[in-house]
Amino acid sequence: MEKNNEKENFFPRTDLAIEISDVLKLDQAEDYQIPGVEITEKSIEEGEVKVTRVRILDEEGENQMGKPKGDYITIECPGIKQNNPSLHEKVIDLLAQSITSLLPEHENRPLNVLIIGLGNRFATPDTLGPKVANQVFVTRHVALKAPELIEDDVAHLSSFAPSVMGLTGIETAEIIRGVAENVKPDCIIAIDALAARSVSRINSTIQISDTGISPGAGVGNKRKELNETTIGCKVIAIGVPTVVDTATLVSDTLSEIAKLMAKEADHSPLFDILKEASHDDHYHLVKEALGDEIKELFVTPKEIDEIMEYLSSIISNGINIAVHPCMTLKDINKYTY
Amino acid sequence: MEKNNEKENFFPRTDLAIEISDVLKLDQAEDYQIPGVEITEKSIEEGEVKVTRVRILDEEGENQMGKPKGDYITIECPGIKQNNPSLHEKVIDLLAQSITSLLPEHENRPLNVLIIGLGNRFATPDTLGPKVANQVFVTRHVALKAPELIEDDVAHLSSFAPSVMGLTGIETAEIIRGVAENVKPDCIIAIDALAARSVSRINSTIQISDTGISPGAGVGNKRKELNETTIGCKVIAIGVPTVVDTATLVSDTLSEIAKLMAKEADHSPLFDILKEASHDDHYHLVKEALGDEIKELFVTPKEIDEIMEYLSSIISNGINIAVHPCMTLKDINKYTY
Amino acid sequence: MEKNNEKENFFPRTDLAIEISDVLKLDQAEDYQIPGVEITEKSIEEGEVKVTRVRILDEEGENQMGKPKGDYITIECPGIKQNNPSLHEKVIDLLAQSITSLLPEHENRPLNVLIIGLGNRFATPDTLGPKVANQVFVTRHVALKAPELIEDDVAHLSSFAPSVMGLTGIETAEIIRGVAENVKPDCIIAIDALAARSVSRINSTIQISDTGISPGAGVGNKRKELNETTIGCKVIAIGVPTVVDTATLVSDTLSEIAKLMAKEADHSPLFDILKEASHDDHYHLVKEALGDEIKELFVTPKEIDEIMEYLSSIISNGINIAVHPCMTLKDINKYTY
Amino acid sequence: MEKNNEKENFFPRTDLAIEISDVLKLDQAEDYQIPGVEITEKSIEEGEVKVTRVRILDEEGENQMGKPKGDYITIECPGIKQNNPSLHEKVIDLLAQSITSLLPEHENRPLNVLIIGLGNRFATPDTLGPKVANQVFVTRHVALKAPELIEDDVAHLSSFAPSVMGLTGIETAEIIRGVAENVKPDCIIAIDALAARSVSRINSTIQISDTGISPGAGVGNKRKELNETTIGCKVIAIGVPTVVDTATLVSDTLSEIAKLMAKEADHSPLFDILKEASHDDHYHLVKEALGDEIKELFVTPKEIDEIMEYLSSIISNGINIAVHPCMTLKDINKYTY
Repeated sequence: MEKNNEKENFFPRTDLAIEISDVLKLDQAEDYQIPGVEITEKSIEEGEVKVTRVRILDEEGENQMGKPKGDYITIECPGIKQNNPSLHEKVIDLLAQSITSLLPEHENRPLNVLIIGLGNRFATPDTLGPKVANQVFVTRHVALKAPELIEDDVAHLSSFAPSVMGLTGIETAEIIRGVAENVKPDCIIAIDALAARSVSRINSTIQISDTGISPGAGVGNKRKELNETTIGCKVIAIGVPTVVDTATLVSDTLSEIAKLMAKEADHSPLFDILKEASHDDHYHLVKEALGDEIKELFVTPKEIDEIMEYLSSIISNGINIAVHPCMTLKDINKYTY
Repeated sequence: MEKNNEKENFFPRTDLAIEISDVLKLDQAEDYQIPGVEITEKSIEEGEVKVTRVRILDEEGENQMGKPKGDYITIECPGIKQNNPSLHEKVIDLLAQSITSLLPEHENRPLNVLIIGLGNRFATPDTLGPKVANQVFVTRHVALKAPELIEDDVAHLSSFAPSVMGLTGIETAEIIRGVAENVKPDCIIAIDALAARSVSRINSTIQISDTGISPGAGVGNKRKELNETTIGCKVIAIGVPTVVDTATLVSDTLSEIAKLMAKEADHSPLFDILKEASHDDHYHLVKEALGDEIKELFVTPKEIDEIMEYLSSIISNGINIAVHPCMTLKDINKYTY
Repeated sequence: MEKNNEKENFFPRTDLAIEISDVLKLDQAEDYQIPGVEITEKSIEEGEVKVTRVRILDEEGENQMGKPKGDYITIECPGIKQNNPSLHEKVIDLLAQSITSLLPEHENRPLNVLIIGLGNRFATPDTLGPKVANQVFVTRHVALKAPELIEDDVAHLSSFAPSVMGLTGIETAEIIRGVAENVKPDCIIAIDALAARSVSRINSTIQISDTGISPGAGVGNKRKELNETTIGCKVIAIGVPTVVDTATLVSDTLSEIAKLMAKEADHSPLFDILKEASHDDHYHLVKEALGDEIKELFVTPKEIDEIMEYLSSIISNGINIAVHPCMTLKDINKYTY
Repeated sequence: MEKNNEKENFFPRTDLAIEISDVLKLDQAEDYQIPGVEITEKSIEEGEVKVTRVRILDEEGENQMGKPKGDYITIECPGIKQNNPSLHEKVIDLLAQSITSLLPEHENRPLNVLIIGLGNRFATPDTLGPKVANQVFVTRHVALKAPELIEDDVAHLSSFAPSVMGLTGIETAEIIRGVAENVKPDCIIAIDALAARSVSRINSTIQISDTGISPGAGVGNKRKELNETTIGCKVIAIGVPTVVDTATLVSDTLSEIAKLMAKEADHSPLFDILKEASHDDHYHLVKEALGDEIKELFVTPKEIDEIMEYLSSIISNGINIAVHPCMTLKDINKYTY
């Protein structure tokens, strides 16, 4: 999670395709379909988990959504924040299926996968990427140096945490490019903590997409976008919102205040104003009002250190099962290290 | 920083005496003195550091302030959040003087001091107490077992981090009581991270007081209050606000929005409402509007892991210099461990 | 693992009853039984795990073994050092059974258990106790404050890591005594890292005994022995050897050199000397030869950080299953935190 | 510290030039000079610190020493293992001078330096490199993006910890090559923990050399050697021995036993054997006798976690002062993070 230059447009500021499609369908008929976009949903475990696949099919879809063509799968499960091993296993399973559906064809040879753990290992809500990078089952060096030790179809998995520019002095995209040029993977899987658009999504949503990453870069900086075109292999991104910025928290709360007032008999003028102002107007109002010092703060749950253990274990096990054909739910790693 | 039952009264919800006296002096004449309270201020280092001593003298002062009789010294220094060694040394010096002024008389024998590091070592903004407990210069075991090794006037310092009830299943006050019964100190110094009342105070204010602590307890639970009366020795508390709750953040922002609107030509009705409503009214409005999930979140700076290193180093060195007569600024520990 | 004054006698220097009985049976007939001692063994998982119960029955057994009357159960499993989830589950199961067999009677009321995690959390091979203390499923505070939330037969589990005297300045036994006086447990379970007598035992042996602990104390210091007599409740100790001292390593190696030479045709005089000298003679020879600096070193595997994760997870899950009647292998905690 | 294929020759197995020259001068006249090698020594702080510069001048020197032409500066200071701030400052100063003497010419433009922290951040005695990489004062990103913020002569410092092949699945040399191709430094400074040849050197010797590194590679594997020829910029290596292998410990002890016996009146045959056998013979004898399991163990001081804090602080501050012209001993970073 490096700081991006803010994208200035009318789309909500979010990395999650599902939040954009939700906004586009607002105030539309129930069966409205966004042009150029195909959305399928399923509810699992009696509603405890919801999986949505947003497929952007063509240029019209890209314009509608403000995101590149490709697949965006979202697993929503508020329960993953708790220590619930059996629910976590279910999510690992769904995550493995989602990743598998996005992996490149590789016929009968082993897949060469490079895991990139984005983020700063010294800031707790940003440790997700580095933790996953340490927990996946790395095999490439064994495949190269002692191939007799591993099964023929085990993926050649390598893994790497490039840290963040503030700590290295080097643009993260350049480090990844340098490593990828040497490893020459069939596929990169990059894991990152995201900033959420909504307080309720923190640590409960996983997005898996196949359209690349832009570590620490503003949109439009082609040199820093890492995708199939720029780096020569498929780039799958796995992201989890782990914090919200303070402006989001405050504007969410203003909306709640407006709703609360709406229930009361006498409509105060504040209610009318808040009602009229759209949510995004609140956001800009709030953003302006927040001092620079407050803008630097972030909002996170008290149990964030513990939740990072759960999430990194879920994601690393999901990757292991997806890329190594011989691994199953029975082999999930019980130790986060 | 364990969760207290909320104190229900018209005082602002704060652990800092200085925030209460600021409210009481609001809208009063400049030379107004709160009855039963004596306040002295000094500005140091060209205003980079401000030291305020609030002395509650009698019952009238207690009623005014809603806090027990005693001394509350506040060191304010926004610069301590940065990596600024020479400013940190200045604060260490001021902190050592403040602690020294509150230590009990001990004539010519060595002082027996028990350091208590309150808080949860697994939640970053709450690690201040445990970190300080690990960094003070512990001597009691040497004084008892190999007294020839240390100078006669070195304090007998012991140090202990009782963790939090959620991790131990034991009330923190009971653990402290059990340890204190065995160590029999002349003085306890307890360090804790606090919740701030104001976003601007996070990690920039240190309060030193001599009126005891109530770990994880509501006011009025005499069994959990640890002070000279209940535990038989002076109890000095050193507290630093390291987080604010989300309701504080939102209501602070509403006030800012009101100020912003006041500058604009046409007075909107929202402005009037926000202007009329006092800050504390915002807080209650906001508190009601926040969902339970949001109430569980907290607000903290991105650099919190790093700032905890600075603060724990400052406080442990301040304690070392205050209690060990032979230690000076030249001996400050350069390593936080 | 605090430093004990060395026990000076002809028993091998070891905390493991099984190592003493092995020495006593050396050079005896195969069916020799140590007077006053009952030993039963079973081999499990095709020999991958071995469980031995040494029961010291009476004063004669105490004299023979140099250890107090009681049960000493040893689980030996070299495989636990590897990341092998299914083998770990087997050991958890055996450990839970062993603990259960030593727990006090408690009829139909819930058992009140206090977990004590001995050791220094800042020295990796000594972190076992503090890690387990953090990973057991703590319930006492819920049972006291919100009993409606938990089942009637769930144990009242509290947990505590007293650190070591070098860090606190307080004798560990005193801290435990102070906490136990407030918690009033039916049973204490103390976890500690031990020094091994043999290199091959490092991290592969778990001893469970019910005869108390002496944290940081020499034998015979009654004030520091914590057992049923001195503290008023049963004290179960769970210990794992995680390091060996350098003298043990060197004397073990000398024995190996002697064996190696024995295989060679021409018997060198060194062989004769090494052969004659018993293993314990080597130890004393070596101890004398080692400089003070070397004595302060210890020997540990390269993967010690990782192995501590496995061991703490195994032991905390074993305790959870033993004390909480409703927990089973299905509920084992997959996250070490 | 990745495992190297063992160098098979008659030189002692060591990364320290000073240990080789010591062996070569053994049994020679006091004024003996190794051909092609220039050695200068100075003793500082009343003998508390010793600085030796071994300069290999030509091919004859290379053959004598078994190491490439260049400078090898060794700072020996047993006291750096203790918490001794003023002695540490002296060593920082000497280290900064040593690094400065090896930095490439760069006329009036700022030096572009890439710090490489070798080693495994999850194995305590191997954390030195990664810790230093995190503690140097990184400036390259500021120099590139906001040059107005920093002085013209501040070095462009970037910093990077490539982890180890066992965790990444990628050869460390390849990662460094990939990063260096993008950063294009004038000079690389690589920090690594070494295996010591002698127990007494652990954590008390720093070697600074300018002849390159071979991370995780055997001698003669040109592709993995990173030096001025292969990577196009000067490569300075800073190494500290932090562990010894078990064979070294045992053979050192055997030598001590021999010395001990020599003092006794009756010369036992063991003495004669041990006396005759050279130290390196012991080593091979011992190596053969040690089981595979024991070979995997290593020897380290109990306080290793703490000592890593001192060493990483000393080395990162030494680098800061050497490369950033405006930094002095007054600015040394008091916080290790």
